[in-house]
Amino acid sequence: MTLDFQAILDAIHKDAIIKKNKGIVASYIPELANISDQNFGIHLRTSDNKEYASGDYSVPFSIQSVSKVLALAKAISISNQSIWKRVDVEPSGNPFNELSLLELENGIPRNPLINAGAIVIADILISNLENPKKDFLKFVRTLANDDSISYNKQVALSEKVTGFKNYAAANLLKSFGNLHNDVEDVLDFYFHQCSIEMNCSQLSKAFFLFANKGKCMLNKTHITESQAKRINAIMLTCGFYDEAGEFAFEVGLPGKSGVGGGIVALLPDHFVITTWSPGLNKKGNSLLGMQALERFTTKTKLSIF
Amino acid sequence: MTLDFQAILDAIHKDAIIKKNKGIVASYIPELANISDQNFGIHLRTSDNKEYASGDYSVPFSIQSVSKVLALAKAISISNQSIWKRVDVEPSGNPFNELSLLELENGIPRNPLINAGAIVIADILISNLENPKKDFLKFVRTLANDDSISYNKQVALSEKVTGFKNYAAANLLKSFGNLHNDVEDVLDFYFHQCSIEMNCSQLSKAFFLFANKGKCMLNKTHITESQAKRINAIMLTCGFYDEAGEFAFEVGLPGKSGVGGGIVALLPDHFVITTWSPGLNKKGNSLLGMQALERFTTKTKLSIF
Amino acid sequence: MTLDFQAILDAIHKDAIIKKNKGIVASYIPELANISDQNFGIHLRTSDNKEYASGDYSVPFSIQSVSKVLALAKAISISNQSIWKRVDVEPSGNPFNELSLLELENGIPRNPLINAGAIVIADILISNLENPKKDFLKFVRTLANDDSISYNKQVALSEKVTGFKNYAAANLLKSFGNLHNDVEDVLDFYFHQCSIEMNCSQLSKAFFLFANKGKCMLNKTHITESQAKRINAIMLTCGFYDEAGEFAFEVGLPGKSGVGGGIVALLPDHFVITTWSPGLNKKGNSLLGMQALERFTTKTKLSIF
Amino acid sequence: MTLDFQAILDAIHKDAIIKKNKGIVASYIPELANISDQNFGIHLRTSDNKEYASGDYSVPFSIQSVSKVLALAKAISISNQSIWKRVDVEPSGNPFNELSLLELENGIPRNPLINAGAIVIADILISNLENPKKDFLKFVRTLANDDSISYNKQVALSEKVTGFKNYAAANLLKSFGNLHNDVEDVLDFYFHQCSIEMNCSQLSKAFFLFANKGKCMLNKTHITESQAKRINAIMLTCGFYDEAGEFAFEVGLPGKSGVGGGIVALLPDHFVITTWSPGLNKKGNSLLGMQALERFTTKTKLSIF
Repeated sequence: MTLDFQAILDAIHKDAIIKKNKGIVASYIPELANISDQNFGIHLRTSDNKEYASGDYSVPFSIQSVSKVLALAKAISISNQSIWKRVDVEPSGNPFNELSLLELENGIPRNPLINAGAIVIADILISNLENPKKDFLKFVRTLANDDSISYNKQVALSEKVTGFKNYAAANLLKSFGNLHNDVEDVLDFYFHQCSIEMNCSQLSKAFFLFANKGKCMLNKTHITESQAKRINAIMLTCGFYDEAGEFAFEVGLPGKSGVGGGIVALLPDHFVITTWSPGLNKKGNSLLGMQALERFTTKTKLSIF
Repeated sequence: MTLDFQAILDAIHKDAIIKKNKGIVASYIPELANISDQNFGIHLRTSDNKEYASGDYSVPFSIQSVSKVLALAKAISISNQSIWKRVDVEPSGNPFNELSLLELENGIPRNPLINAGAIVIADILISNLENPKKDFLKFVRTLANDDSISYNKQVALSEKVTGFKNYAAANLLKSFGNLHNDVEDVLDFYFHQCSIEMNCSQLSKAFFLFANKGKCMLNKTHITESQAKRINAIMLTCGFYDEAGEFAFEVGLPGKSGVGGGIVALLPDHFVITTWSPGLNKKGNSLLGMQALERFTTKTKLSIF
Repeated sequence: MTLDFQAILDAIHKDAIIKKNKGIVASYIPELANISDQNFGIHLRTSDNKEYASGDYSVPFSIQSVSKVLALAKAISISNQSIWKRVDVEPSGNPFNELSLLELENGIPRNPLINAGAIVIADILISNLENPKKDFLKFVRTLANDDSISYNKQVALSEKVTGFKNYAAANLLKSFGNLHNDVEDVLDFYFHQCSIEMNCSQLSKAFFLFANKGKCMLNKTHITESQAKRINAIMLTCGFYDEAGEFAFEVGLPGKSGVGGGIVALLPDHFVITTWSPGLNKKGNSLLGMQALERFTTKTKLSIF
Repeated sequence: MTLDFQAILDAIHKDAIIKKNKGIVASYIPELANISDQNFGIHLRTSDNKEYASGDYSVPFSIQSVSKVLALAKAISISNQSIWKRVDVEPSGNPFNELSLLELENGIPRNPLINAGAIVIADILISNLENPKKDFLKFVRTLANDDSISYNKQVALSEKVTGFKNYAAANLLKSFGNLHNDVEDVLDFYFHQCSIEMNCSQLSKAFFLFANKGKCMLNKTHITESQAKRINAIMLTCGFYDEAGEFAFEVGLPGKSGVGGGIVALLPDHFVITTWSPGLNKKGNSLLGMQALERFTTKTKLSIF
């Protein structure tokens, strides 16, 4: 490859920061509302361990739903078979009726990357980890090879105080027998998981195993090659709420977004790329992040399709 | 009228107790599961203050959802106008998607007699009553002119421990801003309200105001004539889950059923009739109670249609 | 009764015609769009055969969905039992998803007064009548004792050319095996049925049997007393699309509206009342008609509740 | 690559034909019902123009929904931008409510590979092609470099006579203004399109352009590289009804199935693979075809993830 990745990232960064429409920063908790929409970071880590970055790539932010992929990886590494009796792998289609689908389908969430599915994964982790919050954080730190990564307890608390829809989902799961632990315990773990703060660089590292057949950047095997492929498949079909099809169509990479404005995407055997821009589009995905990734794959012609 | 009500009730009672298919007694909490399906009571109170009864009409049972009509009456008597911004008056049609409809319609329950709607009514009562549980019980006792009526605290507790779907509904309402008090406080009230124990005779008395232009059996006005009519309209269109149309079609009276096996129905200016038989049909309404009321209106030709 | 019905109707008429907001006249076919929203008629026929009327009560209009009740009565008079295997009697709740419900419930329409249900009733009539269109018209003429009543063939044709949603419903019914005749034949009958033109006076006569235990104004029995009651129950719970609860709540009478601006309502053993005002509210029911009937039952205190 | 493709295909074939559970052959039209479930063909065409095959790979079958991808390609080649205002690119999630979603989303089909979406694509082709059926067939013949490919008029006729659900969808689209031509004309084209008969070998050729940046096997450019990628993205997220996630998860290739038992899948820049086995699983996809492809990608480790 003779692509000048640094020049491409710089050009994307340069264009992004002058865009007038930067989307709307999530405001349902103060910790997110206070983040400036002027932030824009992008970070690329290639399979030959080179790194390229531009902008605010080293500023930590709340990874939120991006954490769902890491939790899924941990759960799969522990009890792969038992998961798929409790969560499906199909796209959810439409967000307006997340609880509706759960009702219609007897408490089996459509996939592990929507909230209801991630809550079931959290339940599985609680059942299987000795010290759930501590052990999960350790897993993330190991993947990213960085012990400075932590929960933001204030964010977790704010989510708890305002997270009525997640309480509704957890109780509905419980009513269908698809939550084995206490609602409070599961959501406490879930809100902590989502509160993890990382920067673009750390996320590119932490997701390296998905582009590397299950081996993290220190070459340790955490999940099998087959499991890594399947998680990539789930990211592609389910990683962007009801914009998953759009992201596959426009960008063509497995990835996952979070309401904190982060997006991680990857091309197996080639690279992991992370963007951060807090302003969201109407579907809840980072507006400039989506545009940056679309531009990156268009320029480089690097996509799974 | 030259109808021999006593003979009619006796005949209905006699036929009911020999029916082989008595339906299925609710079993989600031990207090309900332990009730024998052999119980059958029927009680009629006419507008000229005569009473007729047969069978187990003086055995107290858990009134459950029948309480929703009494709670609605209390709420209407306090703050009629504010209610209808928060709850609609349309039939819900279908039970499979109670939470779905709530999601689709932005947290406005279809009517005050489905669980979500009754939870909003409970919220309104908590906001407006000084001592919600005490005051509501006093209201019911006054209506029935009977101070022996009480909550069954064990039933309330059991509902609390297993009521995950109600927790889901309450949290979903909260997420839409349609619950002003704490979820726990509202559900504590709601579970107590449903746990009230009354017998057929007491229920016929307590519902007398709906057949009597808003005046209770002691002739005290609790709601206006217009309010009584509207509550009757809501009972007719929404009182039997997704069997409301069937009940209107077969029986033709405003009424309300509960999972404890009770049904109260009434013909304005004529009578209130209460049945109790714990076995339920597939839609969750008392099997023999439905049959008894259908037979009563067929025999007497007394219905609103 | 010492009510001065004529004075009440005159007052309602007087107030109605000066209302600024007269609703929106249906415009999907030219024949309806061309009707002036200034028309307002009201007609009352009591059980003792007295008539009271005001305004444009003798101007014919397209009865549209009001015809569904007459078709249902004819079908019930022919083959009562077979109907209820193919159509339910529950309110549909919500109009946004008429076809959705049909899909979910395997081709069994919620009730005979929504389009899908009325199409099944039309199918039943075609299967059972020798000359369906001729025989049905004769039935309506007999009920109203008026041979001048006719189909408006131009309206029927316009409906046919634009009625894609009805074609969708009929084909969906057919795909579930709940349409026995050809889609074209059934819809041809259905569009003719809806195209019947009548005035308020004729409608009050034609619906007299529902207020008179199944006997028409000439005292001939067309349906049994029990069947009349059940049709009334269906009108009350299902007669006004997703405003059925509202109509029961505000007016408290069984009734049926049509997109041509007509509404017929009745109090068993007391009266039939018909209003006509072409402007519709957001739910598709006559705006001034609804208000007129609400006012009528409030003033006279005559309702089923 | 030192993979012995021929040996792999032979092994897959050998195992497939001895499987006891071969799924259920579609039976809604006689032409499909009469196909033996003993057929099994598999054909691989690599980017370096080599071919490998086993079993009944040269027996023609009804390609049915596989044709939707070819129709989409033709439509994109003609009027790319106008398509996406009329069809979305999101997975549909759930098949039970295909018409429901269409209703909820105001006549915009979720994607071009569900029936409603394919009907809109057919409408676009009719509006843009001079001789729609002739021109489309020519396009398919050109892609496969094979003039022997034809419609099966008997199959098209059978679909027409029984395709009530497609008539329902087309009429619903028309009611929303999202069908510009006559329902009959559009469905006539659509049923013909689905009736095309091809064998595995021909399909591998016809789909070659999607694995080859838009150029067919004769190196002629029909669509741009970017368009080819996007069609692949749509196949991956939407190509297998509500089993799209499962196929991505288990197989990891863009692909499309048809009710005739065919599946075409591809790895960009590497190969196109086609299987045919008429027995379907519960979701309507070829049972043995799905298994064969899962085995193929597991053995070769060739997938997009």
